[in-house]
Amino acid sequence: MKAAILGSGGYVGLVLMRLLADHPDIHNIIPVSSSSAGVSVEDHDPGLGRSARQKTARTGGKLVPLERAAELEPDVVFAALPHLKSADLCAPFFENSVVIDLSADFRIRSTDAFEQAYGTPPPRPDLLASACFGLTEWNRSQIRSARLIANPGCYPTCTSLPVLPLLQEGLIEADLWTNALSGISGAGRAAKQSMLYVERTENMNAYSPGTQHRHVTEMKQIFADFAGTADTSLFFIPHVVPVRQGMFCATRAVLTAGYSVADAVECLRNRYADEPFVQVLGSRIPETRHVRATNRCDIGVHGEDGSIALFSTIDNLYKGAAGQAVQNMNVRFGLDETHGLPDQGEF
Amino acid sequence: MKAAILGSGGYVGLVLMRLLADHPDIHNIIPVSSSSAGVSVEDHDPGLGRSARQKTARTGGKLVPLERAAELEPDVVFAALPHLKSADLCAPFFENSVVIDLSADFRIRSTDAFEQAYGTPPPRPDLLASACFGLTEWNRSQIRSARLIANPGCYPTCTSLPVLPLLQEGLIEADLWTNALSGISGAGRAAKQSMLYVERTENMNAYSPGTQHRHVTEMKQIFADFAGTADTSLFFIPHVVPVRQGMFCATRAVLTAGYSVADAVECLRNRYADEPFVQVLGSRIPETRHVRATNRCDIGVHGEDGSIALFSTIDNLYKGAAGQAVQNMNVRFGLDETHGLPDQGEF
Amino acid sequence: MKAAILGSGGYVGLVLMRLLADHPDIHNIIPVSSSSAGVSVEDHDPGLGRSARQKTARTGGKLVPLERAAELEPDVVFAALPHLKSADLCAPFFENSVVIDLSADFRIRSTDAFEQAYGTPPPRPDLLASACFGLTEWNRSQIRSARLIANPGCYPTCTSLPVLPLLQEGLIEADLWTNALSGISGAGRAAKQSMLYVERTENMNAYSPGTQHRHVTEMKQIFADFAGTADTSLFFIPHVVPVRQGMFCATRAVLTAGYSVADAVECLRNRYADEPFVQVLGSRIPETRHVRATNRCDIGVHGEDGSIALFSTIDNLYKGAAGQAVQNMNVRFGLDETHGLPDQGEF
Amino acid sequence: MKAAILGSGGYVGLVLMRLLADHPDIHNIIPVSSSSAGVSVEDHDPGLGRSARQKTARTGGKLVPLERAAELEPDVVFAALPHLKSADLCAPFFENSVVIDLSADFRIRSTDAFEQAYGTPPPRPDLLASACFGLTEWNRSQIRSARLIANPGCYPTCTSLPVLPLLQEGLIEADLWTNALSGISGAGRAAKQSMLYVERTENMNAYSPGTQHRHVTEMKQIFADFAGTADTSLFFIPHVVPVRQGMFCATRAVLTAGYSVADAVECLRNRYADEPFVQVLGSRIPETRHVRATNRCDIGVHGEDGSIALFSTIDNLYKGAAGQAVQNMNVRFGLDETHGLPDQGEF
Repeated sequence: MKAAILGSGGYVGLVLMRLLADHPDIHNIIPVSSSSAGVSVEDHDPGLGRSARQKTARTGGKLVPLERAAELEPDVVFAALPHLKSADLCAPFFENSVVIDLSADFRIRSTDAFEQAYGTPPPRPDLLASACFGLTEWNRSQIRSARLIANPGCYPTCTSLPVLPLLQEGLIEADLWTNALSGISGAGRAAKQSMLYVERTENMNAYSPGTQHRHVTEMKQIFADFAGTADTSLFFIPHVVPVRQGMFCATRAVLTAGYSVADAVECLRNRYADEPFVQVLGSRIPETRHVRATNRCDIGVHGEDGSIALFSTIDNLYKGAAGQAVQNMNVRFGLDETHGLPDQGEF
Repeated sequence: MKAAILGSGGYVGLVLMRLLADHPDIHNIIPVSSSSAGVSVEDHDPGLGRSARQKTARTGGKLVPLERAAELEPDVVFAALPHLKSADLCAPFFENSVVIDLSADFRIRSTDAFEQAYGTPPPRPDLLASACFGLTEWNRSQIRSARLIANPGCYPTCTSLPVLPLLQEGLIEADLWTNALSGISGAGRAAKQSMLYVERTENMNAYSPGTQHRHVTEMKQIFADFAGTADTSLFFIPHVVPVRQGMFCATRAVLTAGYSVADAVECLRNRYADEPFVQVLGSRIPETRHVRATNRCDIGVHGEDGSIALFSTIDNLYKGAAGQAVQNMNVRFGLDETHGLPDQGEF
Repeated sequence: MKAAILGSGGYVGLVLMRLLADHPDIHNIIPVSSSSAGVSVEDHDPGLGRSARQKTARTGGKLVPLERAAELEPDVVFAALPHLKSADLCAPFFENSVVIDLSADFRIRSTDAFEQAYGTPPPRPDLLASACFGLTEWNRSQIRSARLIANPGCYPTCTSLPVLPLLQEGLIEADLWTNALSGISGAGRAAKQSMLYVERTENMNAYSPGTQHRHVTEMKQIFADFAGTADTSLFFIPHVVPVRQGMFCATRAVLTAGYSVADAVECLRNRYADEPFVQVLGSRIPETRHVRATNRCDIGVHGEDGSIALFSTIDNLYKGAAGQAVQNMNVRFGLDETHGLPDQGEF
Repeated sequence: MKAAILGSGGYVGLVLMRLLADHPDIHNIIPVSSSSAGVSVEDHDPGLGRSARQKTARTGGKLVPLERAAELEPDVVFAALPHLKSADLCAPFFENSVVIDLSADFRIRSTDAFEQAYGTPPPRPDLLASACFGLTEWNRSQIRSARLIANPGCYPTCTSLPVLPLLQEGLIEADLWTNALSGISGAGRAAKQSMLYVERTENMNAYSPGTQHRHVTEMKQIFADFAGTADTSLFFIPHVVPVRQGMFCATRAVLTAGYSVADAVECLRNRYADEPFVQVLGSRIPETRHVRATNRCDIGVHGEDGSIALFSTIDNLYKGAAGQAVQNMNVRFGLDETHGLPDQGEF
């Protein structure tokens, strides 16, 4: 199998290269970059090892421009590009390749909702109907035959995995408050003063609270599509904390009358019993280090007096981006879903 | 003025020494430690400067045991000692000194509530009636004549400052959810594996959620005493994040019908207009770096559709502990309330 | 193959478990701990994934005491135990298992030198003659048949890999100054106040400079054994910096008359051309992130006016401990030397 | 006294504002910025406190453009601007103000040496003869009457303070090797990908080793000017480590025959006995946290067999930049040299 990575110089692209280099079913990788075309993969990213060099032999071990990538006819294309630019840059691949897009360009089906969140209409409204939303654990059957997969955002993934089973089964009311802590890699690799080491170490703050963050639109669509609750209310407060990779969400909901915290834990355990990347810990509260550099989502639950708090952790670059994209590729191509996806976090 | 510091080796004690060394109205400092008695202040804490050495001349520039401190008859005693041990160790000073206790031993007036939170009855129930709660901005008149001041906890200070005016004036309903992020110095200086650098860097998690944290009892008492809302419901989720000093709280409440976010901002601005250490930023969200190593509390507000989010930042070791203790001393002894208290944070 | 890990609760033990869980040739892992015997591997270390649970099925997915581990007759035993305790605790395994000891107990052949460095005679002088020093790239033929392998220290590994070829070939004089920066995991997992997050973040310092660090003894033996320079002078300055994992060494030497920097680079390239885990970068200076969580050592060279600076990076827990131990196991048992050993670092 | 700060938005400018706001002899501050003129000081830097607002009343509490600053005729101008731009931007102030320039533009007297280090001739060669080098402890008498003070670089300050007395007295040979670790603020506030939080946390590396760093030229001039050793050899290896503020230097030298380590300590103690900001610790090794946010330089010494290691710590933004600049102002205007300069570091 041949895989191309568009956006090889961003954090998500750098993780994709690592995952594909160690993936047993990928034999050729085509690293694409307009700004760094011609640079060798080891100069581009000295952290890479032997397998990355071997699997890029077809491109001479170098990054290539977009056109060259298209000529090489990859089976699958991962687009780790900025929002509003991705759809166009993916165009050369729609015919011959499965495209897994990690931007927001194909995530929101409603053009109005997209425009409200991103300030401009979606770049390719014609493709929205056929784009498949890649929240793997909730959309496998569609993913299996998709030509275009819209990989979810990091906050939507981490927030929705613990919430969806309970919303779907009616155990909680559709009025949520989520506090999310994100590692700084979520801000991307573009040089911004506000993300310099000196500005972020020993510092923390919330940003875009309420319904201001673009991911709120995406989360509401997820709740509607997969739990069937069209009018879920979500008050979302993301924070930036001085961590490189990692995401911690705490979601508070009200238990529907008649249900207990134990019911909620059982519901989550049943739903995710066979999922290789979702661990329901019961009343234990997860820590982000344990899922760092893995495709896991760990979930803990605490409840009191009719209230429930759902704790969930992911690595924003893995299950929140590159990892879930590879998981979707595995599903799409009928590979073992766990191939190439680490599940051992840090200690 | 002579000041003694009990618990000179803990993080709060180390900050107290810095504040008092630079305080224009303090001329003698008596650093007390049972385990390090006889050690010179510069060996004990190589970060200290000239003024710390000069102001400890009475003790030969050395830490002294408790009995020696009592003989020196300090005007004010700061007790930065573990809960349940502090009350007893302060005993030699109750007669001749004003005692500012930074433990929880005198914070909770109800012995039942104390026992529920701390697992044992309060060590000196006889003194609870006369202990004055040291939330400076809300209890100045009592502090002015107090002999024993119970300095508030860090979470209660950071959570209650933005909440109290709104609760008191009835602008929000008495049902709160607070997410709090704390720097690691809040866990104290005792050697614990879970607080090693390796365990905490690149890691974050919630702990003691709901009503489990001991500070919830304290916060409910604060709401009752100062806002008059005896039955405030509080769902509290503290988190540990890899920051040395700093605290960020996000509290969600429901606006009482008829009130707007602008009303809430105005209420906060009016209440704190003359307070040197509370800044109401309006819709700007504070960052912890800006209050680091200061006695400040910065407050921002965001609201939507009848919901309100209150953001507040302090340095847990300063306004959340040593800083507020010095502020209370200033009030108690009729000094300029801002003396010795930095209000310039980091950039 | 069955592998036992003694000291499963320390940082090196935690890494060993991850490496063996993902190692294709290891089918059973016996995690040993006296203090945590009976605890499940996932409670012990929530970062572990499925393979760790599967490979510990023989022990019921639990940590076991030493005696039980001996009954299970592991093919190989990794001892990640404190110096001076390891030799005794390994005793039950010497007869039936290959023992790879990661402490210093078997590293120093001279009992005098050991006693000088560690303050007490070596615990098992009878075994020193048969212990094989596990600096893989320099001692493979001995390792292949060893029953007891003394795995090198982190500083000796990182310092000697760039130095040895040049010393051996006579390109540099035997008078070295090495400055080494170490991540904090090198201090181990025991709860020490000086290694708390608050004490180490935003802090750096040298310690044990000159010839005071115990590893100097080990390095001098390495230079004598593998480069044949018995009387190498080494002035060694280790530093602690706020990094979790990683080591950076800068070694200055004087080029022997007649040799150039280019000669030195060529010598290193020749020596390590076929080594999967040593990369000679030429004049590029390595960064520790690129070898984080890998078994790699990256080497860069700079020279001027007859002086040369050798830069080398490893992850102190991987190539500096657990990784090299697994590499030694691979060599000893005739497995592919790269099996189970990551070579993709971070970006 | 009126002070202007050119470059108010950089890290050094931000520290200068803090120092001057708390300085008892400065009554008016003129914050200058071309890009942020018209912005209020609290919006520009929310970390600032009351005194910064009060002391900028003359400019309406706002940043002003260069021309406006010149009209206000400051007594002293601090220029915290990029190299090669500073000299020109300072021009309007040379006539009426004392200028303390923190760039390299006036540091190097030899135009050839400047051109070699900075790739272009010095921008104002006509002023080099009258510029006074601001290494306070070594050049006080000149500073007292200077109109233009060239404030030293951070590496030169930290390296030379422990070295100069020993070189001057002939206790060490003029052949030095210095390893320096710098906090990341030394790289400035310009948005660079390589200084993003994600790129620098958990990472360390050397850069510009040997004689490549521009500060080597400056250090050689210092050794010549103040110790009289014109041909000192210096092999300098700077490193970047994940620390916000702080610098740690380890310099190795050879003791001149006949001198001991004790002689060296005594020499340093004698030389700095009356210096308020230089502490000679003897054999204790300093830590950077203890000088963080202070104007101190702490010095420790270790020696063996004729070799000596000198350890020195500063905060690169304080004694390495803004702090020493204020110290020079104090000297220049006959103020108490310690005014406005913190000497209490962190614990």
